[in-house]
Amino acid sequence: MFQVTLNHSYFLASLRTTLKAVANKTTIPVLTGIKIEVSAHGIQLTGSNADISIETFISLEDKKAEIQIIEHGAIILEGKIFANIVSNLPEKLFTMEVMENKQVRITSGKAEFFVNGIDAENYPILPSVENKNSIKLPIELITQLIEETAFAVSTQESRPILTGIHLSLTDNKKLTAVATDSHRLSRQACFLTTMVEDFEITVSGKNLKELSSIFVEEENIEVHINKNQIAFESSGIRYYSRLLEGNYPETSRLIPSEFNTEVIFKSCELLHAVERASLLSQEGKNNVVRLEITAEQVKIFGNSPEIGKVEEELEFISVDGDSLTISFNPDYMKAALKAFGDGEIKLQFVSPVRPFTLKRASVEDDFVQLVTPVRTN
Amino acid sequence: MFQVTLNHSYFLASLRTTLKAVANKTTIPVLTGIKIEVSAHGIQLTGSNADISIETFISLEDKKAEIQIIEHGAIILEGKIFANIVSNLPEKLFTMEVMENKQVRITSGKAEFFVNGIDAENYPILPSVENKNSIKLPIELITQLIEETAFAVSTQESRPILTGIHLSLTDNKKLTAVATDSHRLSRQACFLTTMVEDFEITVSGKNLKELSSIFVEEENIEVHINKNQIAFESSGIRYYSRLLEGNYPETSRLIPSEFNTEVIFKSCELLHAVERASLLSQEGKNNVVRLEITAEQVKIFGNSPEIGKVEEELEFISVDGDSLTISFNPDYMKAALKAFGDGEIKLQFVSPVRPFTLKRASVEDDFVQLVTPVRTN
Repeated sequence: MFQVTLNHSYFLASLRTTLKAVANKTTIPVLTGIKIEVSAHGIQLTGSNADISIETFISLEDKKAEIQIIEHGAIILEGKIFANIVSNLPEKLFTMEVMENKQVRITSGKAEFFVNGIDAENYPILPSVENKNSIKLPIELITQLIEETAFAVSTQESRPILTGIHLSLTDNKKLTAVATDSHRLSRQACFLTTMVEDFEITVSGKNLKELSSIFVEEENIEVHINKNQIAFESSGIRYYSRLLEGNYPETSRLIPSEFNTEVIFKSCELLHAVERASLLSQEGKNNVVRLEITAEQVKIFGNSPEIGKVEEELEFISVDGDSLTISFNPDYMKAALKAFGDGEIKLQFVSPVRPFTLKRASVEDDFVQLVTPVRTN
Repeated sequence: MFQVTLNHSYFLASLRTTLKAVANKTTIPVLTGIKIEVSAHGIQLTGSNADISIETFISLEDKKAEIQIIEHGAIILEGKIFANIVSNLPEKLFTMEVMENKQVRITSGKAEFFVNGIDAENYPILPSVENKNSIKLPIELITQLIEETAFAVSTQESRPILTGIHLSLTDNKKLTAVATDSHRLSRQACFLTTMVEDFEITVSGKNLKELSSIFVEEENIEVHINKNQIAFESSGIRYYSRLLEGNYPETSRLIPSEFNTEVIFKSCELLHAVERASLLSQEGKNNVVRLEITAEQVKIFGNSPEIGKVEEELEFISVDGDSLTISFNPDYMKAALKAFGDGEIKLQFVSPVRPFTLKRASVEDDFVQLVTPVRTN
């Protein structure tokens, strides 16, 4: 039965990270808990909701943790309550001690808590991830790839595979991320500096978005990919997510390569105009705006019979090709433009009924977004 | 049919203030709208949810508003949509023009909105408040009085009168505010610098809490009290609330004047200890903590059979009188201590079954809070 003394605010940071994997409600009650393991090397915390798992480790050698281990052992404590207790402790140091009846005595200053624990044996065994097929890369590279695609995943559970981001490695170095909800798509790629075996996986967009909140102080992470799991690892933190099962749709042939109309806008000017045009339609039943492109002018229209209508002539940088009138869901366009941020944006169209693309106008890169138009009339 | 041009961000501030009185859902559909009246003097906006009403006025003489009135008139526009449009306009200035079919044309730069309006005749006539029986006072005085009492109002609709703050003027100058949900009570008072006729009213705590968000830039407000309404007024803004009907309970005799036990704490130290003691009980069914006072020591206990227990010896400044063990809902104690802020706090007890009081220890003032104990055994 363990006994350990350590710095409460340092411990709290690890505890809060681990807690991100713990669900408030779960069909497996022990998973509302956090497993605490005290060994000769330090303290390991484990949290899991069966879909994702987080392990954090505080090393005995980490001076800031001020760890003093008196006895080894392990226990499970209800995660949320444990974190509440630790965050409210009065003194810098605190002591945890597992008693005979699995109660945990937590003391700091004159405050003394006795919390009912659960035998650590009851914690499920997490699937292990082997360290072969590993990629080491800057955390920024992967979090940006996720940020630029995750918004386009499906939020509907009817096709679970579309709730994921499809990650594929080709030519041993090009990492491509694709997300689509079947109405719009976002694709971005980056290049690894070391050669890695090609792979193709799909990981929950929601789980991937957590990465940036879990690895906040890290510069590099290692990524391990196995049959059913992906693991992200850096000093002291390991984050696992299940892979999504099923075949991801073949998306590359959806993106047209030849176009009949091309318009270049300042991204933020187009964004604001689309926001205005959608103010009325988003209140009505039919959230659609219409773009009318001719060689001389580009106009945008929004309309909601119950509320009113709006039109605006847009500033543009250039127009090439055929005249075109096309309608689309403004929410997709707004999300796409926000992902590009500032700069000039190129819209390329085939016809009023074919998906159109958005790309950066000033640079040739791999970032492309696709929006399916809405057929009106 | 009016036509007016003005500064959109200046107008937006007034519009957003007025919108605070507008409900999203209402049984009187026209009340989701804002009435816009353009007269020779300026623009008046009116919003109401039948319980509260707000009128804002932008004077033609207000240079920052950059008003140009081309024609007078009035119209009703759906409030939320109108505010969304105004906040998204592209240029500094914008023009509103009421067309023949009650459509309102809103233009700014190249953006042009047509929004369906409703004839201003359909707007309900707000009850008028006479300017007799008026009090002029610093806004800070009244908002502090509200902040120090409003948290103690009842959130239950079963006794509507207890959802209000009871405001009474006595001796022509002492303004006392009382709030109670029948389990705890908060009472504070302040003194007016001018003599006013005595009164006694009860106003919704929720409505009074809005004051500080409505009169943000003001230093002084005028308060007008009528039979059914209270109105708060400053340059350009008038805020009305209905008075609550019914008799407010006689609370002064609830506050004991003689005590058998008195303890003085540092407010923040007691607060943190109560927070710790309540961490476990607030998760269980029975949210109660216990305080044990003897001449030698003060201890606090929390307990939740399912989760665990906590105890802590408290730092105190002084203990006087009989030993006592008393149990109470820690939420009431936490709210009371937060209202006092920093400083030393005096707890005074009669017996384990009688309400106890909290007062500032260092100054003699009118601020008193009462907490009813929980009978255990």
